[in-house]
Amino acid sequence: MSRLRLSITMSLDGYVAGPDQTEENPLGIGGMELHEWFFPLKAFREMHGGDGGEVNASSDVVGQRRANIGATIMGRNMFGPVRGPWPDESWRGWWGDDPPYHHPVFVLTHHPREPLEMDGGTTFHFVSDGIESALTQAREAAQGRDVSLAGGASVANQYLAAQLVDEIDASIAPLILGRGARLFAGLESGALKLQQICAVDAPGVTHIKYEVG
Amino acid sequence: MSRLRLSITMSLDGYVAGPDQTEENPLGIGGMELHEWFFPLKAFREMHGGDGGEVNASSDVVGQRRANIGATIMGRNMFGPVRGPWPDESWRGWWGDDPPYHHPVFVLTHHPREPLEMDGGTTFHFVSDGIESALTQAREAAQGRDVSLAGGASVANQYLAAQLVDEIDASIAPLILGRGARLFAGLESGALKLQQICAVDAPGVTHIKYEVG
Repeated sequence: MSRLRLSITMSLDGYVAGPDQTEENPLGIGGMELHEWFFPLKAFREMHGGDGGEVNASSDVVGQRRANIGATIMGRNMFGPVRGPWPDESWRGWWGDDPPYHHPVFVLTHHPREPLEMDGGTTFHFVSDGIESALTQAREAAQGRDVSLAGGASVANQYLAAQLVDEIDASIAPLILGRGARLFAGLESGALKLQQICAVDAPGVTHIKYEVG
Repeated sequence: MSRLRLSITMSLDGYVAGPDQTEENPLGIGGMELHEWFFPLKAFREMHGGDGGEVNASSDVVGQRRANIGATIMGRNMFGPVRGPWPDESWRGWWGDDPPYHHPVFVLTHHPREPLEMDGGTTFHFVSDGIESALTQAREAAQGRDVSLAGGASVANQYLAAQLVDEIDASIAPLILGRGARLFAGLESGALKLQQICAVDAPGVTHIKYEVG
């Protein structure tokens, strides 16, 4: 069965983005610091067409999270800063012509838009009929492989509340953001049964993997 | 210099107690489950005068957290369920005649009360003139050793906001509590500079140690 795997970095106080997200500051105030463990990695550089970079305890974790993924689901704010109806087709994501997904990506939005085919195998599909529809479409596109749930917090919390997530891969950054988009907000006590599978002590971050269900 | 070390278990969504704390349910709904990693340990059983119990990856962490501690600070709700002025002297803590501290414990409260000497070296001192006074008194009592900040969330958050905490020893339990007393609530972005020292993958819990400041 194709599994839905939430893969996300949060601050120690549970935020996956800071307040005041803008086009210049897509992760809000302080939010970019969440990913400081990721940027120096060889895996990160390669995803973005670069050379060099470090291999450390996070490298294996990143490799495992990317393995056997056939499609990705994300919220619209993760795709871009445009709010409301699409004014035109000019916004094509944060990632340039060749986004680091190389598979179908399903973007949840209230505003329909035609699919957007990028270089390297990434096609953005815009889903406006809800999270269950996006998951069905993503599973079909993944052809037996798993589906990655990439965030942000709002979409992740909707899937968590609906008990549709099979695995949580959380990276906890040594950071207090204080405000912003909080993962797990609005969930009920005992809404999720978690089992800790493993934790990895890596430079500047702790990765914890949970089985849900 | 005597350090203030916050030692606390929280859910993955950041709660150190569930909602609706009562005398029968001191950690609120679901809150007792936070400590399920701790109860089977030999160290826990010994603290409460029992035999047997497990030794696992948590045992070393517990030992390190208890080492070199000369005094403890806690909030009044951690000491007991009584709210408002003390009706009498009958409440003597949750821990029986011989509490597992064996050193002076400073209880923050708005309501003065005479010190309470228990068996085994634990004396509860009730501090009604604020967190800085409690820290000064605890440091003096600790005689060069460190001071443990035991919680709950409200007291911990006050010390964190005042930048008086030197170390955070957080245990993250595989649990979503949804509501209750949330650690780190109300802090400002960047209020604390954290450096991850180490993380330990233990049965049913992840322990992370941060240096603050």
